[in-house]
Amino acid sequence: MTERIYNFSAGPAVLPLAVLEEAQRDLVSLPGVGMSVLEISHRSKAFDEIIQGCEANIRKLAGIPDNYHVLFLQGGASMQFSMVPMNLMPAGGKADYVVTGSWSKKAVKEAQKIGQTAAVAASTESENFTRVPKQEELKLDPQAAYVHITTNETIHGVEWKYDPDTGGVPLVADASSDIFGRPINVGKYALIYSGAQKNLAPAGVTLVFIRDDVLARSPQSLPTMLDYNTHVKDKSLYNTPPVFSIYVMRLVMKWLLENGGLEAAERRNQEKAKLIYDAIDSSGFYRGHAEPGDRSLMNVTFRLPSEDLEKQFVSEATKAGLDGLKGHRSVGGIRASIYNAFPKEGVEALASFMKEFERTYG
Amino acid sequence: MTERIYNFSAGPAVLPLAVLEEAQRDLVSLPGVGMSVLEISHRSKAFDEIIQGCEANIRKLAGIPDNYHVLFLQGGASMQFSMVPMNLMPAGGKADYVVTGSWSKKAVKEAQKIGQTAAVAASTESENFTRVPKQEELKLDPQAAYVHITTNETIHGVEWKYDPDTGGVPLVADASSDIFGRPINVGKYALIYSGAQKNLAPAGVTLVFIRDDVLARSPQSLPTMLDYNTHVKDKSLYNTPPVFSIYVMRLVMKWLLENGGLEAAERRNQEKAKLIYDAIDSSGFYRGHAEPGDRSLMNVTFRLPSEDLEKQFVSEATKAGLDGLKGHRSVGGIRASIYNAFPKEGVEALASFMKEFERTYG
Repeated sequence: MTERIYNFSAGPAVLPLAVLEEAQRDLVSLPGVGMSVLEISHRSKAFDEIIQGCEANIRKLAGIPDNYHVLFLQGGASMQFSMVPMNLMPAGGKADYVVTGSWSKKAVKEAQKIGQTAAVAASTESENFTRVPKQEELKLDPQAAYVHITTNETIHGVEWKYDPDTGGVPLVADASSDIFGRPINVGKYALIYSGAQKNLAPAGVTLVFIRDDVLARSPQSLPTMLDYNTHVKDKSLYNTPPVFSIYVMRLVMKWLLENGGLEAAERRNQEKAKLIYDAIDSSGFYRGHAEPGDRSLMNVTFRLPSEDLEKQFVSEATKAGLDGLKGHRSVGGIRASIYNAFPKEGVEALASFMKEFERTYG
Repeated sequence: MTERIYNFSAGPAVLPLAVLEEAQRDLVSLPGVGMSVLEISHRSKAFDEIIQGCEANIRKLAGIPDNYHVLFLQGGASMQFSMVPMNLMPAGGKADYVVTGSWSKKAVKEAQKIGQTAAVAASTESENFTRVPKQEELKLDPQAAYVHITTNETIHGVEWKYDPDTGGVPLVADASSDIFGRPINVGKYALIYSGAQKNLAPAGVTLVFIRDDVLARSPQSLPTMLDYNTHVKDKSLYNTPPVFSIYVMRLVMKWLLENGGLEAAERRNQEKAKLIYDAIDSSGFYRGHAEPGDRSLMNVTFRLPSEDLEKQFVSEATKAGLDGLKGHRSVGGIRASIYNAFPKEGVEALASFMKEFERTYG
């Protein structure tokens, strides 16, 4: 029997056990291939089947319209912070960024490095990123090249509950930390990018959905690897892709489909998150970071009455097999990351632990 | 019993069976950790131990001097084609490239895109890349920012047998396809980069050795992810690294050390390559592509009397469990890639097959 603990890490994060077991079973030799998936050529039929099967499952899960390309890139969201403005912002142009936490702050900073104007269209920083701005708070420039949002802020635990209306300006989203945790209306976005290591696959692959019409914006002078057109043209096989991460993503997509798709995933995630948010709301001991209306289904952030108690909480939780609960150093407190693959029993165990801890120290 | 065939693929390529078996055993739960290596945080102690252990093994294997940094990046050699000139070539500067095959051609083309001058210091293209230039053929500019070479050309099967003398100009190498296939004199190079998927690890990680003094050249304006300084400063943990590929690389490095290090690897590779080159040289049927003095130990390229016979050869070899022998479409013919982890028995099987095929069709 393999010992496994509950892993509340913000990413890389927990994967479905069934996926891990299938990957393990076939790791030395893929059935019918006679090589490990770690060894197969990215130009082989076996890999063609994997990457095409993965894309087909993604399109099915998210209902991706035909005028969108699905790309498997490298470098994570951090590389996309640069690729988006390099490709989508014309010389002398500007883009609007909505700043809702640490990750959107990083995104706008990188866009500003590209040498064009990346403006902050709204920010909740003065409120310590406890919420997402309302539609009427967004100061959007109709001339902007695009509007950029971060659908879920992993560190602060706030999540957009609506797709903002940009009045026709292309909308770009970093969806790294809640992609496929709920249904997604891809057609409202010109580009969506997601590092895989939270909800999709092991670290090492970045999933991009890009609408066909924005491809024409990329300047000819871009480095080949940083031009979305390269990867569209060569179907993510311009150079060697991260084969194993794509293989595991395919297994995760299959697991999602077999378990009812994104609607069912959202229901499970709502149930799980409610267990912890209820434990917070029913107590005078715990204090949630995010405003209730903007609470993340993926990252539940909360504080205890003192930093000493928070340390104690993390330490005792770890001993109880509840790992990775320490909040990000920039926010402090506790963060429970409960992505798609996080089991409900683990959330129940945390809710019980919280009540027990409050009884002891409250 | 797991069925495994002989995989002559140029990359991703064969990995040591012992490494695959260890990765398989621990895939669902790392001993003492209780999570899969696919799920652990890159900020965890478990991963610290993996990445630091990997670097320590690399430094030991290659005798890397203390003034070099070891980086684990993403994007493969193709991304390095741009990162090298972006970081090392000052505005208005130039660099010298030695062109010995398809990969160095790609490297110089990308450098020219950056907007500076990347000159061809020597090329063997007119001879169809059958050899590497001699020292006296290199037209090197002493004012160049650096000189770039490709230590082994995967497609053409030619390999540098000497470190060129650049008269003090920093030497940069793409060593993707022969890294650690033989001892490497890192101290002669300012920067060495290698995609992992041939000799080091599964696809998804790029190994970079960079000498401390060249770091000062990177312009402040570079995108954060494309600046070597970012990854030096954060020890390859600025963003989420490809955790699993680094984990497997560590196992491969341990395997190399346990099997006598790089000198022993070179001896094994020489023995393996000799079996195929002897089969070529002792026949009037097969014709080697590379000149004998510059033959690659990693990629053995040869032709048959006709393209029809080459097709027949590949088809019959595949049926005999010898996979991936078709040469790259730009060169044609046969290519047997026999990296460090390729077993000697597989090379013997190919040599026997070649003799048998010649008897039948010669």
